[in-house]
Amino acid sequence: MPDPIPQSGLSLRSLITAAGELQLFLAEEPVRPPGPDEVLVRIEAAPINPSDLGLLFGPADLSSLAISGSPQSPVLTARVPERALPAVRGRLDQSLPTGNEGAGLVIAAGENAGALLGRRVAALGRAMYAQYITLSAADVLPLPDDATAADGASCFVNPLTALAMVETMRSEGHSALVHTAAASNLGQMLNRICLQDGVELVNIVRRPEQAELLRSLGARHVVDTGSPSFQAELTAALEATGATIAFDAIGGGRLVGQILAAMEAAAVRRMPVYSRYGSDSFKQVYIYGGLDTGPTEFNRSFGFAWSIGGFLLTPFLAKIGPERARALRDRVAAELKTTFASRYTAEISLAEALQPDRVAAYNAKHTGEKYLVAPQKAL
Amino acid sequence: MPDPIPQSGLSLRSLITAAGELQLFLAEEPVRPPGPDEVLVRIEAAPINPSDLGLLFGPADLSSLAISGSPQSPVLTARVPERALPAVRGRLDQSLPTGNEGAGLVIAAGENAGALLGRRVAALGRAMYAQYITLSAADVLPLPDDATAADGASCFVNPLTALAMVETMRSEGHSALVHTAAASNLGQMLNRICLQDGVELVNIVRRPEQAELLRSLGARHVVDTGSPSFQAELTAALEATGATIAFDAIGGGRLVGQILAAMEAAAVRRMPVYSRYGSDSFKQVYIYGGLDTGPTEFNRSFGFAWSIGGFLLTPFLAKIGPERARALRDRVAAELKTTFASRYTAEISLAEALQPDRVAAYNAKHTGEKYLVAPQKAL
Repeated sequence: MPDPIPQSGLSLRSLITAAGELQLFLAEEPVRPPGPDEVLVRIEAAPINPSDLGLLFGPADLSSLAISGSPQSPVLTARVPERALPAVRGRLDQSLPTGNEGAGLVIAAGENAGALLGRRVAALGRAMYAQYITLSAADVLPLPDDATAADGASCFVNPLTALAMVETMRSEGHSALVHTAAASNLGQMLNRICLQDGVELVNIVRRPEQAELLRSLGARHVVDTGSPSFQAELTAALEATGATIAFDAIGGGRLVGQILAAMEAAAVRRMPVYSRYGSDSFKQVYIYGGLDTGPTEFNRSFGFAWSIGGFLLTPFLAKIGPERARALRDRVAAELKTTFASRYTAEISLAEALQPDRVAAYNAKHTGEKYLVAPQKAL
Repeated sequence: MPDPIPQSGLSLRSLITAAGELQLFLAEEPVRPPGPDEVLVRIEAAPINPSDLGLLFGPADLSSLAISGSPQSPVLTARVPERALPAVRGRLDQSLPTGNEGAGLVIAAGENAGALLGRRVAALGRAMYAQYITLSAADVLPLPDDATAADGASCFVNPLTALAMVETMRSEGHSALVHTAAASNLGQMLNRICLQDGVELVNIVRRPEQAELLRSLGARHVVDTGSPSFQAELTAALEATGATIAFDAIGGGRLVGQILAAMEAAAVRRMPVYSRYGSDSFKQVYIYGGLDTGPTEFNRSFGFAWSIGGFLLTPFLAKIGPERARALRDRVAAELKTTFASRYTAEISLAEALQPDRVAAYNAKHTGEKYLVAPQKAL
């Protein structure tokens, strides 16, 4: 028997005031009954991805975090520096829902969506740090029967981004990949995809234990930026694999330029004659994250055949079209407990997500650590 | 009557030794008689473009320039720092011809190229700082009858690069252009092309007198990086024109990022709702020069829909194919004295090109200054 439709539920909201205060709080919101083609999902698990943190905290100064309200209804505030306000002008004084993705149980369904009633589903719902969400039936991904909500919570952002990297590599004419922050949850997935699909992957990590972890997971090419011969080791790995496209999660600093320079050095070694303009081997780096929020800096020591660009999942999915996007989603569902398995550091309630010590932990973005919001957990 | 075929001619050569010495000298070389589909050109004028300087001087330390040899056969030397040698490994100990483009008189022609005999032609010959060159007839551009060699010397690099910018703008789905170092010879050409073709152009310059010059040439949007409100003025010009693609001759410094940030700010003003990921307006900057050889540095404050890449004429021409490339060349020939007119600061002989004071002048890359090598001029 499905549960009765609840009247209302809690939703974690983020608001930045025009006066420069960030406010995170739990709003009690009416539940919208599903229309004919919709389902009502009781959300059980929603991961905190790096891409969620930008909306949650914006450019707030987290050293100014303060908690008020009651334990059941905490309000977390922080100061937003005045110089950072223009960058978020479009969101000022609006209470925004949070949580890009998650999983839960369909507890009510419209007349055309009855088959989903009682099914556990995942969704890229953009408001998943909440107890309930009403979604189009076409937008949910039914999970295998033996999957828990935690198994399915991270079905979209990391798995589809990792698959998008391999898809982009192929569609843009490259034959092997480079990935930075490669020991991350996403990096481990990408390693499994590449091993399975026979794609050569150069993993760039920042610490020896991360290199060891990836090697223990079967990675053939792992380079540590901390090595004194990093540039030479990277060039050798690029020469061995022929990789001419990289996906970078770090963004700031000099790594993007180091990758392009190493790609160029590997390409020049293959050239029979000197060219003043460098190789004609086209070298691409996509920046998809910002673990280092500082400036990106590079010397243009890699010829003229290169490009650095931003990469985001949503426009990628729009570009490949609904049919191909569905094929990728189906692969995720089929390999949920293997290729696309995620591990979580801890499960926290909606109220715990507003505790300053919890914020400090999940906002640290330690490689391999990931937190799961459990909206049904007692506050 | 055509001249008799000479036995030999002088050619300006650049060589970097493995020991780290740059040598520029004049080599006496045998003239190769034209084959059936070739022509022999007596070169009369060849410009010194920024793209020539890289091959001429490489990474040499020009404060160490020294002249030896005779006035008729000077040898210019300079020290190449050891740390810069790996970047030019492919050219070490090879005497390389210099001079990308130029114009001259066809003084001998193969049996299938007789129609060109006696014609003044331009070519992208890659060895044009020389008295003679033998070229495929298909690779020369016959000049209008009233054109001098100086008129036709710069037919390729600047005109085709300027046309390539407008072509690229159209083929990649943009509708208006941004150009930096816009008061340059190339920039003035681009301004004339855009005025003629009805394309909106945002000209970025570094000094008030350059802004004034461009305005006097009909430019509607000119922004000076020296203005205290540069970023706001640039954003306003981008909003007015809708330009989302830029061509940058400078390379180093923060300008590339400033352009992308202004494009994003202009795009965000057009957005009805806030997006945490920024606008979906795709923003492109191509770096085609390196007037500032320092590092490129940017803050990624312009969403995810952006790309920074290298741009080079030769692969562009290969991409558009021979038919379209010929159409662009024909336009250059037809508008040689108007749209594509070049002015020169001075004409210098092959030997004068090796005089340290001349080197200092033409290597200064002052905006609007351009030197012409006249290989037939007395040494």
